[in-house]
Amino acid sequence: MLGTFSSWGYELVETPAVELLSTLELGVEPERVRRLFKFSDGDGRMLAMVGERTVPVARLAAGQLRQAPLPLRLCYLGPTFEGQPAPGSGRQAFQAGAELIGAHSAAADAEVVAMAISALESAGLTDFQVEVGHVGFFGGLMAGLEPGQRSRVLDALAGRDLVELEQALAETDLRAAEQELLLRFPALRGDPDILGAAVAMVDNPVSEQAVRELHEVHDLLIAHGVSARFNLDLGAVRDFDYYTGVIFEVFSTRLGAPIAAGGRYDGLLERFGVARPATGVVVFLDRVQAVLQPTALPAGAGPILVGFEGEPAPAVALAAELRAVGEQVVMEVTSSTDADLWRRATELAAASVVICSGGERWTLDGAGRRPYSGRS
Amino acid sequence: MLGTFSSWGYELVETPAVELLSTLELGVEPERVRRLFKFSDGDGRMLAMVGERTVPVARLAAGQLRQAPLPLRLCYLGPTFEGQPAPGSGRQAFQAGAELIGAHSAAADAEVVAMAISALESAGLTDFQVEVGHVGFFGGLMAGLEPGQRSRVLDALAGRDLVELEQALAETDLRAAEQELLLRFPALRGDPDILGAAVAMVDNPVSEQAVRELHEVHDLLIAHGVSARFNLDLGAVRDFDYYTGVIFEVFSTRLGAPIAAGGRYDGLLERFGVARPATGVVVFLDRVQAVLQPTALPAGAGPILVGFEGEPAPAVALAAELRAVGEQVVMEVTSSTDADLWRRATELAAASVVICSGGERWTLDGAGRRPYSGRS
Repeated sequence: MLGTFSSWGYELVETPAVELLSTLELGVEPERVRRLFKFSDGDGRMLAMVGERTVPVARLAAGQLRQAPLPLRLCYLGPTFEGQPAPGSGRQAFQAGAELIGAHSAAADAEVVAMAISALESAGLTDFQVEVGHVGFFGGLMAGLEPGQRSRVLDALAGRDLVELEQALAETDLRAAEQELLLRFPALRGDPDILGAAVAMVDNPVSEQAVRELHEVHDLLIAHGVSARFNLDLGAVRDFDYYTGVIFEVFSTRLGAPIAAGGRYDGLLERFGVARPATGVVVFLDRVQAVLQPTALPAGAGPILVGFEGEPAPAVALAAELRAVGEQVVMEVTSSTDADLWRRATELAAASVVICSGGERWTLDGAGRRPYSGRS
Repeated sequence: MLGTFSSWGYELVETPAVELLSTLELGVEPERVRRLFKFSDGDGRMLAMVGERTVPVARLAAGQLRQAPLPLRLCYLGPTFEGQPAPGSGRQAFQAGAELIGAHSAAADAEVVAMAISALESAGLTDFQVEVGHVGFFGGLMAGLEPGQRSRVLDALAGRDLVELEQALAETDLRAAEQELLLRFPALRGDPDILGAAVAMVDNPVSEQAVRELHEVHDLLIAHGVSARFNLDLGAVRDFDYYTGVIFEVFSTRLGAPIAAGGRYDGLLERFGVARPATGVVVFLDRVQAVLQPTALPAGAGPILVGFEGEPAPAVALAAELRAVGEQVVMEVTSSTDADLWRRATELAAASVVICSGGERWTLDGAGRRPYSGRS
């Protein structure tokens, strides 16, 4: 995965596993801050173990890398932690990700999506799909509503409660066409035709702009050659305080939760004192691994097992010879009988077994010893 | 480094960055426990961020892997943390290491030393030396002393205070030959001749056994083909509560602190309920990196920079083509002038620059545009 990021020009950065709590609070929503491992250092400052790594990378980009030429392409890999993890998750997970900082364009949005696809394919994933949406489409529809109305609509949508949604919409000033559109929200997925249909039903510049941007990203993803991997999803409703533009989630049919997610977050770096547009992706490596595990890995040949009777030195010298030519060698570290060695070979699924006895070298197989004749 | 460990039959294990404090206290000396980042989870249990990873691997070997066939060969790579780091160290560091669990033999001791040498060489280190000692040699000399006398001698030796050492020794019942030996301790380094000289001056079975074991390890390291990399050091005085046999430290002439260290710790797993001999090595990766940095890394060719005038799609398609054949490609994500693109190419040390303008592709160099003629 890091190899893919690197070949697209993203440089690996290391941010620490522990950050000042005040740093993380600048970018992480309060509900997730609540779940972090938090503690105090000797000087009374509150620290927390990182629950994600986009905010630390943003801190780095707005701080130490403030003078670096833009756009900045950075990637990371590391553990993340939650003191009170969601059910089914562990307290420690691993995330890899990439951030493209200092550019606002459809080309930037499309690059991150296409690179995520390429990285997942290079990790061996074959069975996944990317849903590409835009927070502005829904945001534009909601812009005229009271906060209370807006969150009621959002909750009904998130809960897929159409009865509640219909009632919530009835109390708003939304036009009939817009209400109808929102009722059809979960179904606004598919090819670019939905963009034309949707734009005809909205009447606000923010939603219209969102549709235009999605169209551009769609065309560039075709140019990237990843058309088979993505759908447009105008009904995507996600993290509105954080994301500001094109968003995406990657799903495998084998898992309910997304295996990767990302999008544009033009507001984050400003909170660290440097206003800069940005987009990025995070890959949830534990989920990728869970999806990969059912596939049988190619069974590599086992190691060569080298044992000895009596003195170990001749066996050590043979092991060194074999390693020098690139073999994987496991050496027994105590004197073995042939039976011991054969049992150990079975445990290790050894490709071959050699036993050194004084100056003699023997290959051991099910039938017994025969003279060793070099790598077998 | 992990590649080397793997080719010697060591399997990578992941232990968490946070452990129960009570787990770490079983294996880590109190002074180091004091410096750890500690905090409480929601249930009132005390947790700590790991300061090293041998103790967590021992917990794993004595717990989840209790039934695995012996000897177990495990390796790890991960961050380690200290809340109050030693001067000159950061709060976060990286360690890689390997543990050979369930075997007590010179072959096991020699394997870990030789593998450490091989791993450091494979990381590109050229300028390092391993000091191999044995805690039993000093331990046997000290066995008859009162604890107070013993720690006074140890402190004097560690502080290289020969006047204090002489006074401390005078108050003990040690024979004159043993006192003389201890006064020469810092100089007991070199080739196997020192083993013969030293054994003639001691008169206790523990020290004699230590010399015998060191001799065996010496011969096996010769068989491993690493004779140029190590010295014997009978005067090594280190962590007596933890190490129980052959010990070693790896030094570069470019750094005062060891870049790797290890040895036999036959008492640790017993504290987790399963008595098993073990030996291992930890590599301090930050120090390895510090030693490597002065050497110029081979300057790889820079990426191909692909830019565009007007619409991005043709540039995206070209970038996808080039990536498909394995090129590193950085794409500009906004429309550029030739001057913009040339400046950016300089920042990135790009190997070549292509600009797409409508259906046309141009190679850009200091002299201006010429038609693009494929990979250059």
